[in-house]
Amino acid sequence: MASEFDFINNIKSRYHLDKIGDDCAILPKNETTDLLITADMLVEDVDFRLEWTNARSLGHKSLAVSLSDIAAMGGNPTFSILSIAIPEVLWKTDFLENFYDGWTSLASAYDVELVGGDISRTNEKLVIDSTVLGEVARGRSVLRSTAGVGDAIFVTGYLGGAAAGLKLLENGLRPNDRIDPQMKHLLLRQLQPIPNVQTSIMLHTRGLASSLIDISDGLSSDIFHIANASGVGCRLMVDKIPIDPAIAPVLGDGPLAFDLALNGGEDFELLLTVKQENFSAVQDLGFHHIGEVTANVGVVELIEDDKSTILKPKGFRHF
Amino acid sequence: MASEFDFINNIKSRYHLDKIGDDCAILPKNETTDLLITADMLVEDVDFRLEWTNARSLGHKSLAVSLSDIAAMGGNPTFSILSIAIPEVLWKTDFLENFYDGWTSLASAYDVELVGGDISRTNEKLVIDSTVLGEVARGRSVLRSTAGVGDAIFVTGYLGGAAAGLKLLENGLRPNDRIDPQMKHLLLRQLQPIPNVQTSIMLHTRGLASSLIDISDGLSSDIFHIANASGVGCRLMVDKIPIDPAIAPVLGDGPLAFDLALNGGEDFELLLTVKQENFSAVQDLGFHHIGEVTANVGVVELIEDDKSTILKPKGFRHF
Repeated sequence: MASEFDFINNIKSRYHLDKIGDDCAILPKNETTDLLITADMLVEDVDFRLEWTNARSLGHKSLAVSLSDIAAMGGNPTFSILSIAIPEVLWKTDFLENFYDGWTSLASAYDVELVGGDISRTNEKLVIDSTVLGEVARGRSVLRSTAGVGDAIFVTGYLGGAAAGLKLLENGLRPNDRIDPQMKHLLLRQLQPIPNVQTSIMLHTRGLASSLIDISDGLSSDIFHIANASGVGCRLMVDKIPIDPAIAPVLGDGPLAFDLALNGGEDFELLLTVKQENFSAVQDLGFHHIGEVTANVGVVELIEDDKSTILKPKGFRHF
Repeated sequence: MASEFDFINNIKSRYHLDKIGDDCAILPKNETTDLLITADMLVEDVDFRLEWTNARSLGHKSLAVSLSDIAAMGGNPTFSILSIAIPEVLWKTDFLENFYDGWTSLASAYDVELVGGDISRTNEKLVIDSTVLGEVARGRSVLRSTAGVGDAIFVTGYLGGAAAGLKLLENGLRPNDRIDPQMKHLLLRQLQPIPNVQTSIMLHTRGLASSLIDISDGLSSDIFHIANASGVGCRLMVDKIPIDPAIAPVLGDGPLAFDLALNGGEDFELLLTVKQENFSAVQDLGFHHIGEVTANVGVVELIEDDKSTILKPKGFRHF
């Protein structure tokens, strides 16, 4: 069965949809500015479970995932449209009010204004579609498609925490429980991710990233988006991939921890490539240097103890 | 229980969301142009049934409802974002390809380009969220809130056809059946509505409408949106409300036909108010003069045989 990526590529080429293919579409705004736009749909029991989260956290996350897409272009978020299909049993409660409270407290941190949307009844599960607009200096969006051979690969923060949090939720842990701070950290990485908006704006202002994407599906999946869009390959050093330090005390430091960091999604850290002349500036920011861009087109190698294996993408796919 | 309109008004005032409240949000674009944006969510078994429609028609309608919102501001549609939550059983078929074919054939008529969106799996029913962007000359959107006392009220076309089509679908009729042209017309009003984009642009260019809205929920509901937003009242002449002429031969010309025209939604005709100086110009366009704007704030009167009754909104509500 075709994946959703195959389907989108098919539609894109059939109808010549040139603006599709990065974290956001880039549209003309005015002489100095481009408009960015992105949409993310969250479906109950596929992307979240109501018994694992609460309305405030879900409101936060619905916006965070889209803010992260704006960040993945180097942009500044501005406005949002929010559509919700809600079952009557939830409508009758204070669910939506709490949802908007959570949404608003993240939005106000970035001056994002809710300007519209739709509310529909559903007989089934809750569905949320979050659309966010942003702005970026004209022609200066940071794309997936501009990595160059020899560039260094960096990631802005630790990986695997959100996926570890998901495991803890599956095991019955809840953020309200009296749990230790590491567990709580992992749960919040999953339930209330923080988008890297300020980091992205700083990278953009200083022109430090030659290509940029957010890690939403998982490093092993998103690195391929950069490789394929840029027509390059990548080499990742296994011992440099920064595993969230809260994972080891909770789930051990065996292969599972590495698997979560490599294949787990939803950390919403930024993955960037950096030209050699900017290498030390980016390293000084405390980001993690995890590999290099190669000429081995479309191939991602994992290097461990001087041995190379070819990576297969294992990140999240709906189909 | 609060209606969705109450809820939106509540959120709007609590968080000072000044851009919410018309068919589209109006955002600044550049010195000459404003950006319009609107979103519509369509939920299976609430807004449509798969056994009553087909993928192509559904693709058409998903775009049409949003184009109608752009038309309701006097705008010109430009770009679209489309998010779809789809069950695996449909994903495995050619459903989405046919959906996009239907979407594209309407989009190409108005040069609307698909620039992004999301595809998510759902374990439940199909959900579509259609976001459309448009443009309008800066500060010249035609609002709901600018009707003036003494203005004439017009509607651009016949009403009730889409609701009559829905009744026929409920009765088991399908557009593929060998049915007479009136029945077919009514079914297509429901399944493949035509948004009044060109009409709206013409009205806007000639400056003929003092306020404007599309009839999506039903005349009896949408007339209140103009009255409340403008701080006026309205008087509608019962015998002037243009009942779709295809209804009588199919469903009779009794009270049902009038009820469909007054309360049935989804015709996507435009409802406009017109200053006296433009009255004859609008009448010459063949639009239907159905009433007048009054100073009786928030009250809509129905006039029949010199008797006046007070209208209660009966259009479509989710809650």
